[in-house]
Amino acid sequence: MATYGLVEYADANPEVRAVYDDIMSTRKVDWINNFWKAIAHDPALLKRTWESIKQVMAPGALDPLVKELLYVAVSVTNGCGYCIASHSASAREQGMTPEMFHELMSVVGMANETNRLANGYQVEIDDAFKASSQ
Amino acid sequence: MATYGLVEYADANPEVRAVYDDIMSTRKVDWINNFWKAIAHDPALLKRTWESIKQVMAPGALDPLVKELLYVAVSVTNGCGYCIASHSASAREQGMTPEMFHELMSVVGMANETNRLANGYQVEIDDAFKASSQ
Amino acid sequence: MATYGLVEYADANPEVRAVYDDIMSTRKVDWINNFWKAIAHDPALLKRTWESIKQVMAPGALDPLVKELLYVAVSVTNGCGYCIASHSASAREQGMTPEMFHELMSVVGMANETNRLANGYQVEIDDAFKASSQ
Amino acid sequence: MATYGLVEYADANPEVRAVYDDIMSTRKVDWINNFWKAIAHDPALLKRTWESIKQVMAPGALDPLVKELLYVAVSVTNGCGYCIASHSASAREQGMTPEMFHELMSVVGMANETNRLANGYQVEIDDAFKASSQ
Amino acid sequence: MATYGLVEYADANPEVRAVYDDIMSTRKVDWINNFWKAIAHDPALLKRTWESIKQVMAPGALDPLVKELLYVAVSVTNGCGYCIASHSASAREQGMTPEMFHELMSVVGMANETNRLANGYQVEIDDAFKASSQ
Amino acid sequence: MATYGLVEYADANPEVRAVYDDIMSTRKVDWINNFWKAIAHDPALLKRTWESIKQVMAPGALDPLVKELLYVAVSVTNGCGYCIASHSASAREQGMTPEMFHELMSVVGMANETNRLANGYQVEIDDAFKASSQ
Repeated sequence: MATYGLVEYADANPEVRAVYDDIMSTRKVDWINNFWKAIAHDPALLKRTWESIKQVMAPGALDPLVKELLYVAVSVTNGCGYCIASHSASAREQGMTPEMFHELMSVVGMANETNRLANGYQVEIDDAFKASSQ
Repeated sequence: MATYGLVEYADANPEVRAVYDDIMSTRKVDWINNFWKAIAHDPALLKRTWESIKQVMAPGALDPLVKELLYVAVSVTNGCGYCIASHSASAREQGMTPEMFHELMSVVGMANETNRLANGYQVEIDDAFKASSQ
Repeated sequence: MATYGLVEYADANPEVRAVYDDIMSTRKVDWINNFWKAIAHDPALLKRTWESIKQVMAPGALDPLVKELLYVAVSVTNGCGYCIASHSASAREQGMTPEMFHELMSVVGMANETNRLANGYQVEIDDAFKASSQ
Repeated sequence: MATYGLVEYADANPEVRAVYDDIMSTRKVDWINNFWKAIAHDPALLKRTWESIKQVMAPGALDPLVKELLYVAVSVTNGCGYCIASHSASAREQGMTPEMFHELMSVVGMANETNRLANGYQVEIDDAFKASSQ
Repeated sequence: MATYGLVEYADANPEVRAVYDDIMSTRKVDWINNFWKAIAHDPALLKRTWESIKQVMAPGALDPLVKELLYVAVSVTNGCGYCIASHSASAREQGMTPEMFHELMSVVGMANETNRLANGYQVEIDDAFKASSQ
Repeated sequence: MATYGLVEYADANPEVRAVYDDIMSTRKVDWINNFWKAIAHDPALLKRTWESIKQVMAPGALDPLVKELLYVAVSVTNGCGYCIASHSASAREQGMTPEMFHELMSVVGMANETNRLANGYQVEIDDAFKASSQ
């Protein structure tokens, strides 16, 4: 179980409820997933994290599905079980097909492999890839 | 410098040259970046890695730019300096704008933050996120 | 279950029992947690690890609570479920309040986020931060 | 060099300057380190990150020095060169002595070691450490 | 359960069955472990991953037991529970004794500790260790 | 440069010199590499780390070359530049050939790839791989 248990809506103070309400209306869902209930013991952490996520995951130069795929890629690389489960579900809601998921995993797998090969062979950055020349 | 130095085209055996030629024609470039030259001391590793990358990064259910963004997300999470530089450059060639890069970094940053919060608060996976129910 | 099972006190040889006794007397507890029982199949590993931990976690320039908080920070960053559970419990015994835990998580979360941003933007170290000038 | 170069104060727009001014007045310094200048190409990322850091690193249940030590612990575990350099410097400014740093490193080292031992021996969480019983 | 469930032999298409058959004959076993069944929803991923693993894990300059020990070392460092369990089992089949496992864990533990100390103390690479001089 | 600079033999106190002497005689070399000089500011850390390394890396059920290969595998996975350079050099001294290194890198690369695939597809551990049944 979560370290301090979960803060259910019925037991939440007004500050926490306001965040819960905003999560549900922004995401067009009628429930709150455990992540938010677990961190809601610290309303400032809850509010800051939600507002950052809301800002970051909104449509912009990248569309929301791509952002969810990126979230899954990071979560898989970090091995965060909760995050893999929750963001895979979110990506499916955003339209991720099984084919997209398989390609996502294929890229994540190869990137993790070649990251280590670049480390292990101590490869120097090509001048053409040096930043800020673009 | 790379652990065993770099295998330049002029010094490469036919097996390595064939891979180098395929890299250049596939990517429509006229040079080989250091990563491939560093691992070319093992032609089997070179060939296997290139053919996997070629297969995985080809257009499919996800387009090549999205795949490059995913590659950058993984490389940043793993802290692989070479890979961040090379795949950021590739992503720009595929059309990544500065705005896309900033959003990419914003998502990667938040994902790394919330991955740790989910770990630290020992959050249990919601039933709704349990895999294979979809 | 642990890879080779757990070495219970009743079944332990004198070398292992001596370590178990020292753990219990040092920590003022009357039981041994699974970590030690799992590695006790190798008495040299058990003894070396315990003696290092005992030396490192003793009061010094940093007090034991701060050391436990640091242990949790590393364990959360590495995503080690066992270590998060055991060291969160130890930290509570050393006096960690929920408020301290929330701040700990907030710092760990932000550090993981900005670590990735520094990687991703390929930020160079400022001269003022170069080591050994202090 | 940083991916898009650094945004110097003289070239910054009013939104960025306002953040730079707040960083300098909050930290009582007269310069901006490269991290902020590198991410300032995205004023929303700059502002959100700074405001989160400012809130998280302020004195609270944990004092600022402990928070800097935690930041170093995470950065060392993640292997972020920039962050190790910058937060080690910040910790020294907050009063970290060499003795504190050595103990910090000793704890971080042992935590990374025992995290892997717990993984490798597949140790199950003791009932006494199960969360939410406190 | 795995994200898209498991592809059992009875339900597999000919392409997947061919890989399953090769896995069983190569490894001299009469069953397929969950990893392959989980990724078999993407036959190209299944085939590419298996053929790479088959090539990489075959006897060569390093013997198969050493390769399995290396696999466990990486999996433990990454904290991949499935991989730790499966490759520890494979290593035992290849002849890993409990004594070998304990030494493996001891090395992995120390390497993870000293990796972080090298990071934390910002140690520069000795000229004698610079690559390519060998 | 290292955080607190390097402790040279000429400037070392007797406790540090004793460790340096033991490193040189154990390894049959006439110099001390930077890692030890960087941590020698804390003689207790130096002594504890060296004695642990000496015990762990000594010939046992696994031979010293295999142990160095394992050290490289962990260091590459963690992306520790100093450790990759120093332990690759040590492995060469222990007899690692280029062919061995290429196979080492191939295994490390594949392990990092399949670790992430196992995470991403949320693969459950097969009963046959459950620990302690052996």
